[in-house]
Amino acid sequence: MTTLDPAIAARLKRNEDGLVCAVVQRRGTGEVLMVAWMDDEALAMTLETRRATYFSRSRNKLWVKGETSGHTQLVHEVRLDCDGDTLLLVVDQEGAACHTGAATCFDEDRLLQATDQVTD
Amino acid sequence: MTTLDPAIAARLKRNEDGLVCAVVQRRGTGEVLMVAWMDDEALAMTLETRRATYFSRSRNKLWVKGETSGHTQLVHEVRLDCDGDTLLLVVDQEGAACHTGAATCFDEDRLLQATDQVTD
Repeated sequence: MTTLDPAIAARLKRNEDGLVCAVVQRRGTGEVLMVAWMDDEALAMTLETRRATYFSRSRNKLWVKGETSGHTQLVHEVRLDCDGDTLLLVVDQEGAACHTGAATCFDEDRLLQATDQVTD
Repeated sequence: MTTLDPAIAARLKRNEDGLVCAVVQRRGTGEVLMVAWMDDEALAMTLETRRATYFSRSRNKLWVKGETSGHTQLVHEVRLDCDGDTLLLVVDQEGAACHTGAATCFDEDRLLQATDQVTD
């Protein structure tokens, strides 16, 4: 098991399941690709290997992104937010980020359109 | 109370507290500004008014971003992700997004640097 640097572990504010939120952004374009969750080990592995690794809440285990699909993420930057409960990863995405095959998890469903008139 | 469109409400996958995650991105630059949470009413108000409105987990009530600070967010786009538990908001941010006065909530703490050597 890969252990997280105690200095980093001390700054994390985990939820009741021991997880922090991870927002994943494409390097260069800034597109938001997906949101996933990390426990301490997933973060430690990500920092050590630069392969984005998450904690799957549905499968209840570590998940190296792209391990089966080949759609890996090479991690260039990891930032922690002001209150320690959210990470921002800047990555190079191999192939589709979304399990549906879409480029990002936010491609399909717009609740409010950019082209709507802005009223103020 | 503002009511959320039932067709949208039916697509949301809320956590045990009735909330969905909201990632907030600056229009134009693509900077990720912050992550917050929304209940149905916060989303309904955001869609109706185009002023980003969240649910404050610490204060346990709705929170119109910038209501006291003046650091409002004018919402241009709202997208829902593939599994319905995360929103992406594209906004024009007035002033600082972070309560610390920083431009974004991710400005201060880098766990992994972009300038580190990438080993593969």
